[in-house]
Amino acid sequence: MTTGKINVSVENIFPLIKKFLYSDHEIFLRELVSNATDATLKLKHLTSIGEAKVDYGNPKIEVKIDKEGKKLHIIDQGLGMTAEEVEKYINQVAFSGAEEFLEKYKDSAKDSGIIGHFGLGFYSAFMVAEKVEIITKSFKDEPAAHWTCDGSPEFTLEPHTKTDRGTEIVLHIADDSLEFLEEYKINQLLTKYNKFMPVPIKFGTRKEKIEQKKGEFVEAEDKDNIFTEVEVDNIINNPNPAWTKAPTELNDEDYKNFYRELYPMQFDEPLFNIHLNVDYPFNLTGILYFPKLGDNIQIQKDKIQLFQNQVYVTDNVEGIVPEFLMMLKGVVDSPDIPLNVSRSYLQADGNVKKISNYITRKVSDKLKSLFNENREDFEKKWNDIKIVLEYGMLSEPKFYEKAGDFVLYPTTDGKYYTLTELKEAIAPTQTDTNGKTVVLYASNNEAQHSYIDIATAKGYQVILLDSPIVSHLIQKLEADNENLVFARVDADHIDKLIQKEETQISKLSEEEKEKLKGSIETVVPKENYSVQLEALESTSAPFMITQPEFMRRMKEMSATSGGGMFGMSHFPEMYNLVVNTNSELASTILNSSEDAQKELVKQALDLAKLSQGLLKGEELTSFVKRSFETLK
Amino acid sequence: MTTGKINVSVENIFPLIKKFLYSDHEIFLRELVSNATDATLKLKHLTSIGEAKVDYGNPKIEVKIDKEGKKLHIIDQGLGMTAEEVEKYINQVAFSGAEEFLEKYKDSAKDSGIIGHFGLGFYSAFMVAEKVEIITKSFKDEPAAHWTCDGSPEFTLEPHTKTDRGTEIVLHIADDSLEFLEEYKINQLLTKYNKFMPVPIKFGTRKEKIEQKKGEFVEAEDKDNIFTEVEVDNIINNPNPAWTKAPTELNDEDYKNFYRELYPMQFDEPLFNIHLNVDYPFNLTGILYFPKLGDNIQIQKDKIQLFQNQVYVTDNVEGIVPEFLMMLKGVVDSPDIPLNVSRSYLQADGNVKKISNYITRKVSDKLKSLFNENREDFEKKWNDIKIVLEYGMLSEPKFYEKAGDFVLYPTTDGKYYTLTELKEAIAPTQTDTNGKTVVLYASNNEAQHSYIDIATAKGYQVILLDSPIVSHLIQKLEADNENLVFARVDADHIDKLIQKEETQISKLSEEEKEKLKGSIETVVPKENYSVQLEALESTSAPFMITQPEFMRRMKEMSATSGGGMFGMSHFPEMYNLVVNTNSELASTILNSSEDAQKELVKQALDLAKLSQGLLKGEELTSFVKRSFETLK
Repeated sequence: MTTGKINVSVENIFPLIKKFLYSDHEIFLRELVSNATDATLKLKHLTSIGEAKVDYGNPKIEVKIDKEGKKLHIIDQGLGMTAEEVEKYINQVAFSGAEEFLEKYKDSAKDSGIIGHFGLGFYSAFMVAEKVEIITKSFKDEPAAHWTCDGSPEFTLEPHTKTDRGTEIVLHIADDSLEFLEEYKINQLLTKYNKFMPVPIKFGTRKEKIEQKKGEFVEAEDKDNIFTEVEVDNIINNPNPAWTKAPTELNDEDYKNFYRELYPMQFDEPLFNIHLNVDYPFNLTGILYFPKLGDNIQIQKDKIQLFQNQVYVTDNVEGIVPEFLMMLKGVVDSPDIPLNVSRSYLQADGNVKKISNYITRKVSDKLKSLFNENREDFEKKWNDIKIVLEYGMLSEPKFYEKAGDFVLYPTTDGKYYTLTELKEAIAPTQTDTNGKTVVLYASNNEAQHSYIDIATAKGYQVILLDSPIVSHLIQKLEADNENLVFARVDADHIDKLIQKEETQISKLSEEEKEKLKGSIETVVPKENYSVQLEALESTSAPFMITQPEFMRRMKEMSATSGGGMFGMSHFPEMYNLVVNTNSELASTILNSSEDAQKELVKQALDLAKLSQGLLKGEELTSFVKRSFETLK
Repeated sequence: MTTGKINVSVENIFPLIKKFLYSDHEIFLRELVSNATDATLKLKHLTSIGEAKVDYGNPKIEVKIDKEGKKLHIIDQGLGMTAEEVEKYINQVAFSGAEEFLEKYKDSAKDSGIIGHFGLGFYSAFMVAEKVEIITKSFKDEPAAHWTCDGSPEFTLEPHTKTDRGTEIVLHIADDSLEFLEEYKINQLLTKYNKFMPVPIKFGTRKEKIEQKKGEFVEAEDKDNIFTEVEVDNIINNPNPAWTKAPTELNDEDYKNFYRELYPMQFDEPLFNIHLNVDYPFNLTGILYFPKLGDNIQIQKDKIQLFQNQVYVTDNVEGIVPEFLMMLKGVVDSPDIPLNVSRSYLQADGNVKKISNYITRKVSDKLKSLFNENREDFEKKWNDIKIVLEYGMLSEPKFYEKAGDFVLYPTTDGKYYTLTELKEAIAPTQTDTNGKTVVLYASNNEAQHSYIDIATAKGYQVILLDSPIVSHLIQKLEADNENLVFARVDADHIDKLIQKEETQISKLSEEEKEKLKGSIETVVPKENYSVQLEALESTSAPFMITQPEFMRRMKEMSATSGGGMFGMSHFPEMYNLVVNTNSELASTILNSSEDAQKELVKQALDLAKLSQGLLKGEELTSFVKRSFETLK
């Protein structure tokens, strides 16, 4: 038996990095700017505890393009490295300097915001550069060092004349990566990844107008103030984004401003925000916004962004933010979320599950307090937030438990009830002979207008539930609330939907009914309509088309849960034609000639279809033509 | 100046692999089975050229779970390794054995299907295993070797008693990866990644019924054949999938069977297929299918799958397959597509661009031949393929050039024209006084029925264009075809849409017209309707609502290209109310009392709205009520 050490041949490590380390080459800039930030914050920490006896000042990081020289420079004013440190940190691949630093200064460094995650990142420079130089001067009293490496494992290290503290990384951009010498490209990357990093980042300069006071060399009284143009550093980041501050430091306007900062192309204002801030058992800060959703739930561009210590990571927060809240906007910043792991791993991770639960709880707490503090305002926002909340009730049991406190059920005439209030309000009038309280609802104010009209004329309340997932929600509410049933207003005649003791006496004899039914059935197609004679109030509509609740709801549920093939969505549409035997029209039909009967039934059926939105195409055209004829 | 070599410390290479090599840990199985396939195909090649003097036989690869021992075995009957080769190939990380092999046998190995891409893959085993063993016996006359490594860089290597040729990899699954000891999980992974790999893969056994002939121990004549159950290897893959065969070897049924093999949960049959097969200037095989799309263009589950030498890579073919063909299904297999690179890199890659162009060309060639060979059948399929083709015309100039040969324009009454045929057919009747040929179209047969009716009554042809992107397509067709204009049937009165020499003489005097207009405008809301008096045929509809083409089309274009904010989709809907001054109703209105006038105009407006689908909600309810009143 022999034993030995696996030999990693360095010739092959660079292709490995280039090919596999990150699938996106552009990430190199994030890594290098992160390192620069890291070096700056480390110096800040060392000066604050007295270990570094230098003036911290107001350091910034500069990114500079040298297009002619095909070079990209990243320059910081951080702690720098001695030649010895370059040997140690740079020449030993996969040796994370930040980790060692954190280990040494554990207690005092804890809250100083040192990134420490991207120790490997420096080598990502070789994804875009054929040669990399490091020119670095430590804060310690030692000469500067100059390290050069062309991507082969050979490097050179020599002294340098640099006298100001900090590190300059020079990338000699490779020919296949020349895009990284374009100003727009670097600007785009800095804006994407470094927009909220904690040290100011300079990229070029810009002209700014400075006001010059009247009187100073300006003579004419009537002239406006004079402005002079000066050149100032173009700082591309906001080192102190709102989510890093305490909620008490921020007012409404601050939150709105940060929203605009995050999504400059988003013109709608957010409805409200939720400030996340927890440090035990995991670290998480962030601000979530409820945007104006309306009916427009398409593929969204402006998603929640995930940061780690103010470094942008991704806008894919699947698994971290509960699914029903993915439509929100904002930022989540947590160093405790594992990156580069599979979804299934993420879902099994205890910390991540806790984060998701924490977010759910914060959101429901916020909703509850908004509801309690200003119900009127909350009601106004309901239409924009309901889809998120209703989806949350269906998908997140912990959210469902709390939803009773703030989820609203609006009526077609503009009142808003909680479920408890709704039950109380309708129990006296809408409880049927079996003791079931019937919630009448509509899915569309316009399309079901005539049915809503009939129900409200009876003094009933009709709830407007128009989200696409409402059939699932209703099913759940019925299961969890004894003696509560939901019925859409067009599911049957109103007197059948909520059955009461009193019954209408039929004006027609059984024989007349038979005759009437026969006449109607000769005109009405059997495949789609089943004729039901009912003795209703004489003023009720003579013909009315209804669609039974159960079948329709099952079909809807099947359609919205993508139940193709074996689902019920392919079942034919079946309707009832409710004929009011006590209506004048019923008598008129009975007493007409056969031809007139047919014409009357046809016209009445068309009108009933119109109310249900079922009169279309050729049938509608001929209806309109006939009706124009009768006008002239 | 000092120079030196960057020192990669091996202690850190394993965490690196574990963390960064692949974001999805499950990929390890694909890598190991690929290696096993590789070793088998290499042996095949060596025996075929006489370099290996052994019997190749019918080798397979076996995957075996030992749940109690927490082990997963991958066993092949390939060329195996001597102890020396283990040293060379395994102990030198990032040294790709396949590359060296290919280098040596370049010419003869070219077409033998050796994978050679996954040299690094072996180490992915450490993503899920705490200890890995290799037991391997070379086809050469040397003792077997047994290599063991627990993830630290130390390994042991000793002789082994294995006598049968090939390699067995034993993974001691780590506690955080126990899912990979579940049968369903391994089955799922093998099915996902290895379903079409070129060497049979055995995973367990299954019972199979073998028919026993009548007569053999079976006496009663009337009995059916007797079956005996035997245990057979459960082979999870099809080593010779359809796309690896020549098109001449395959018939329609073979293509359909392969479709079912690819998408077992897809029950619709594909409409037709396109066999891709090119080896210069790049290597690519594959079969694309046009699925039945209908109106159901949702997020699709069954996407085009990308393979490299029969190893599944991904179902994200963005950048490789032209965007308009992403809705197709099937497979593309090419070793020439770079993996693990960014989208922008992929788009800039010359080979990839060529692949995309090749696919576009093959698809248009196929469409042309289908159209030429059986036009009737092609017309039947039109509704299912049009959205892809129309989108292709808009997004791919090379496809647009060829589209004239097969893209169809169906009429509302079921005829199908190419653009050339259409122009010829309508030029005589539908050319207006300005010499423009007007293509009348409808976007919905039902909703625009009355307008279609009027146009066809005049002998005009109406084209049905109901895809959501049609407004963009029309815009393009108008730009590219001089003197061709498109107008939707409800854009104006038909006599205005196609203006001819003859004009109708107005029955009303100017004074009467003024009076009529005044009466109408007191009832019709100015914000939405502009009243237009026209002297039309007396039998034409008295009131009709139209919506001017230009404005409507711009709004549609803006809506479908996601043009929010500054787009036109927020403009209010504006309609024209065309009043036929020669209609009987116009005269009736003029000669009525003021009250009767109002009622007539109201009713006529309601009827016109009905035809345009604009009578809704309360207005519709009261219209139906009024109409029921007049019936009884």
